[in-house]
Amino acid sequence: MKLFYNSWDSKYKHPFGAIKANTSTTWSIKTDPDADVVNLWLTKNNETPVAYQMHYNVDTGLYETSVTITSSGLYFYHFEIVKQNKSYNIDRDIFGYGKLTNSNSLNEFQITCFNESVPAQAWYQNAVVYQIFPDRFYNGFEHGEVLGKKENSFIYATHNDKPIYIKDQNGDVIRWDFFGGNFAGIVKKIPYLKKLGINALYLNPIFLASSNHRYDTVDFTKIEPMLGSEDDFKDLVEILHKNGIKLILDGVFNHVGKNSVYFQSAIASRLSPYFEWFIFTHYPDNYKSWWGVKDLPEVNKSNSDYQDYIYGEQGVLAKWTKMGVDGWRLDVADELPMNFLRNIRKRLDQENCHVLIGEVWEDASRKFVNGKYRPYTAGDNLTGTMNYPMRNFIVSILTADTDLTVIQAMDKIAQLIENYPKNFLLNCLNNIGTHDTVRIKTILNDDEQLVAIAFAVLFMMPGVPCVYYGDEAGLAGGKDPDNRRNFPWHHESLYLQDQVSKFILFRKTHSVLVDGEIAFLHLNKDINGIVRFNKTEMVILLFNKGKEDYVIDAQELSFYGSNFLIKEKIKSTIDHLKLQTRTYILKVI
Amino acid sequence: MKLFYNSWDSKYKHPFGAIKANTSTTWSIKTDPDADVVNLWLTKNNETPVAYQMHYNVDTGLYETSVTITSSGLYFYHFEIVKQNKSYNIDRDIFGYGKLTNSNSLNEFQITCFNESVPAQAWYQNAVVYQIFPDRFYNGFEHGEVLGKKENSFIYATHNDKPIYIKDQNGDVIRWDFFGGNFAGIVKKIPYLKKLGINALYLNPIFLASSNHRYDTVDFTKIEPMLGSEDDFKDLVEILHKNGIKLILDGVFNHVGKNSVYFQSAIASRLSPYFEWFIFTHYPDNYKSWWGVKDLPEVNKSNSDYQDYIYGEQGVLAKWTKMGVDGWRLDVADELPMNFLRNIRKRLDQENCHVLIGEVWEDASRKFVNGKYRPYTAGDNLTGTMNYPMRNFIVSILTADTDLTVIQAMDKIAQLIENYPKNFLLNCLNNIGTHDTVRIKTILNDDEQLVAIAFAVLFMMPGVPCVYYGDEAGLAGGKDPDNRRNFPWHHESLYLQDQVSKFILFRKTHSVLVDGEIAFLHLNKDINGIVRFNKTEMVILLFNKGKEDYVIDAQELSFYGSNFLIKEKIKSTIDHLKLQTRTYILKVI
Repeated sequence: MKLFYNSWDSKYKHPFGAIKANTSTTWSIKTDPDADVVNLWLTKNNETPVAYQMHYNVDTGLYETSVTITSSGLYFYHFEIVKQNKSYNIDRDIFGYGKLTNSNSLNEFQITCFNESVPAQAWYQNAVVYQIFPDRFYNGFEHGEVLGKKENSFIYATHNDKPIYIKDQNGDVIRWDFFGGNFAGIVKKIPYLKKLGINALYLNPIFLASSNHRYDTVDFTKIEPMLGSEDDFKDLVEILHKNGIKLILDGVFNHVGKNSVYFQSAIASRLSPYFEWFIFTHYPDNYKSWWGVKDLPEVNKSNSDYQDYIYGEQGVLAKWTKMGVDGWRLDVADELPMNFLRNIRKRLDQENCHVLIGEVWEDASRKFVNGKYRPYTAGDNLTGTMNYPMRNFIVSILTADTDLTVIQAMDKIAQLIENYPKNFLLNCLNNIGTHDTVRIKTILNDDEQLVAIAFAVLFMMPGVPCVYYGDEAGLAGGKDPDNRRNFPWHHESLYLQDQVSKFILFRKTHSVLVDGEIAFLHLNKDINGIVRFNKTEMVILLFNKGKEDYVIDAQELSFYGSNFLIKEKIKSTIDHLKLQTRTYILKVI
Repeated sequence: MKLFYNSWDSKYKHPFGAIKANTSTTWSIKTDPDADVVNLWLTKNNETPVAYQMHYNVDTGLYETSVTITSSGLYFYHFEIVKQNKSYNIDRDIFGYGKLTNSNSLNEFQITCFNESVPAQAWYQNAVVYQIFPDRFYNGFEHGEVLGKKENSFIYATHNDKPIYIKDQNGDVIRWDFFGGNFAGIVKKIPYLKKLGINALYLNPIFLASSNHRYDTVDFTKIEPMLGSEDDFKDLVEILHKNGIKLILDGVFNHVGKNSVYFQSAIASRLSPYFEWFIFTHYPDNYKSWWGVKDLPEVNKSNSDYQDYIYGEQGVLAKWTKMGVDGWRLDVADELPMNFLRNIRKRLDQENCHVLIGEVWEDASRKFVNGKYRPYTAGDNLTGTMNYPMRNFIVSILTADTDLTVIQAMDKIAQLIENYPKNFLLNCLNNIGTHDTVRIKTILNDDEQLVAIAFAVLFMMPGVPCVYYGDEAGLAGGKDPDNRRNFPWHHESLYLQDQVSKFILFRKTHSVLVDGEIAFLHLNKDINGIVRFNKTEMVILLFNKGKEDYVIDAQELSFYGSNFLIKEKIKSTIDHLKLQTRTYILKVI
């Protein structure tokens, strides 16, 4: 039986990817014209599947149907061909191809339907963000003083020290450890950041807390005194803006620190105004906490007083955003009720702040939490997510042992690109490492040439590239806390800094990297590439992660993407190119 | 049978206490004049006992004999009375009294015989010493900078932090913790020390090391850079001397740090000049170390190269002593061979330094190590010891639950006083707490009035009082590392500082406290006292450690000491005195 379908090809599905509610979508499939019936089976979430019969179009030689989906949500589809009283199912093969299947559990295609497009802030979608873990970047005081030090905590003796947790025999942290980075240090390093070329900062939490990571908020309304005062914060925002650098803060609203003014008040008295914020299973000793970590009591997000405290007119978000904050990243977004997210978004919109990045580790279009899909991509809540799947893709292709690993990684990110509404995708904060992952250099066995390739891929991909402080300076580090070493001032990798600043400049001068279409090139486990293109420009990144030099034979090229017309152009461009071991080629056509 | 003997009473033993070799000693004992034979049985260490027959003196009514002991060492004696073919033994009862015994294991009297008197340095015997654990006293830099910080170590955030060990799950220290005290801080606090009245400092180790206590020497020839430079050290000595403050250093010659230049060289190559310094059981992994602590490889003190390195003409002791060091304290003196000690003493004598205090925790006249008595009091090695038995005495009488505890504690220290050659005793460095003990305030349940009494007793006793930094400021602390908190600047106990400075002034103006005779007063478990007296002056300290006020009834007084003539005078002085709970009375007569 003749059969062809590819969800990336506009001839077979139009428009590409996610669709806006009430938009008509056309599906076409090629098969023998003598089929008795061809159906598109469309299912919303777990509802009853609906069959849409497809009709043979003599002009195109394809069976086709158009459907207007009217309500946003997560849809899945496959095709059915009935021929001589037999039914054949066509589900999703790698890279959006249709394949005939005998399996009972279908690998359906996904189609995400959203209500409204998330805001496309030009500054943000064109930005290169730099993530700073504030304690670990730079202490800007002349004599290295650390102000606002906390009793019974430790300061690392030197900036080269390897971070450790100081724990007791039960494994509980007994003292917090600080390097003493502060706002003054960020201000002093603005020339460095500008030279690098970044134009936005994402800061891990900066509000009063007990720990060095500050995810254990003590008071949402106060700046952590080790970082500076509230005036210092205002000055920071002002000087960043003067230098063309936007600021994204970290909002941690699912839980607070055990030492927080809120929780301490709640356990001191049931009459506390904060008593109702927490969920006590046995007052005051036992309470709901994040992942059972007693240090982090969870807040009852359904409490209207708490809601008002966070996103009310006089709330925490309003207070800081009014000072000039350009965006927020939301910690553990998966644990915040959808309405809580929507109201945060409303508050930020009212404050003229349109960047709200959720911490979601998986494909946010199909994130399944407590028996339900989370409608992150509906348009009315998050404007994007931290793109950990992008990191997985980059890490996978750079550590792949087999062709299959590469292709599966490409397929997975291609699916995500297909699943995300375009502006949502372009709003995602892409990374090759954060405060929660092993550093890229360590994953790549300290091979800085491979790190440069990882950056090259990061800067090629749709979404906003985010550089985790120090990655561009050759900082290594295993899992937490080793991934939170201090920035290696005076011991930086000049090679990587040079590479990263070149990539940043390249992205700034080639907007196709921001909003162009994408295609993937694959020759073998070592030789792979990314293409971004639009009607006027094409950029090809090709890299060799292997240990041998390689001369490209374009006949070996596998091409994955939405526009097969460009394949021949790419072939002719890359044929016979020599790719030395652990190098890349970046071509503009 | 009539019987009386008391080793403290000059009528029964003369001279008092330890004797110099080749001095005649006279023993007398009272019993019925019809005894067939009365013998003094004298035994040197474990040699064969020798009987000296005692003769009845009609004038005194006592049996007596005189013996000239010609060789120094540790002697024990008891008496035997033979009467009607029966033999009766008289051994030592509490407080030097003779008692008839049926026991086979005699509790003999001790007599220490020494060859030469240790030097009696007037400055030292009259001194009040202040012990500083250098990392924990004061950082003298304006901005609180810590210079010379070590990689992978921690600095306490605030001076109020409680010290902890940072250990891994095996209990091994993985990071060293510092407060950052330094020489500059000592210099800045000289006005404080002078106001307190002290006139000598004992510093815990100051040579290059890895830890905060610096007993793990890395290089004996270098000053620890966290404390300052060699020039800073010279300046420290100069400015201390200008201010009338002498300096005692801590010599740690039994072992070195694993990271020492010596040990690292030794394990790098068998050809190392330091290879022979260590005792490898399996090169280079296994080696003899102090108490099996692998971090502290033991040095082979019989190695002549090492001996020369320490006490040679160009050695470590010579180097530092020439810079003006006034005395040395020797760490773990018990583990240094006697000849090693003697040669250290010779070197110091040559450098005109005559204070050599050994770390010996027990009665040094009878310290038994590896099957041998250590002849510490012979006169040719240590000039004194750290007097931990004195601390035990003071702690015991201030925490005693029963009369017996008090009397036993008094007896024990009285024995030590009797056992030590007088100058050795006056050279002992008395304490009520050091870096190796729980702090006195913590032992006394944070009762500063009891701490004041502890200080009163310390300043009353023969030997040189040593104040452990912070004890005078009300610093508390449990066992190591809690006993090594930072000095509580700005949170000092003004009451205790005032008390201690008064005691220091009192001692300076009453030399009887330095070299007078001693007697002990006992009324009950709570009411006790110390008397120091000479021909011209008498000082009585009487204290009530109990929870009730108390009016003294002199009839209850028990008196222990060498001169019973003063008992009546004391009685009449103290009768009817009112002692409020937890207070003392200090009387000069």
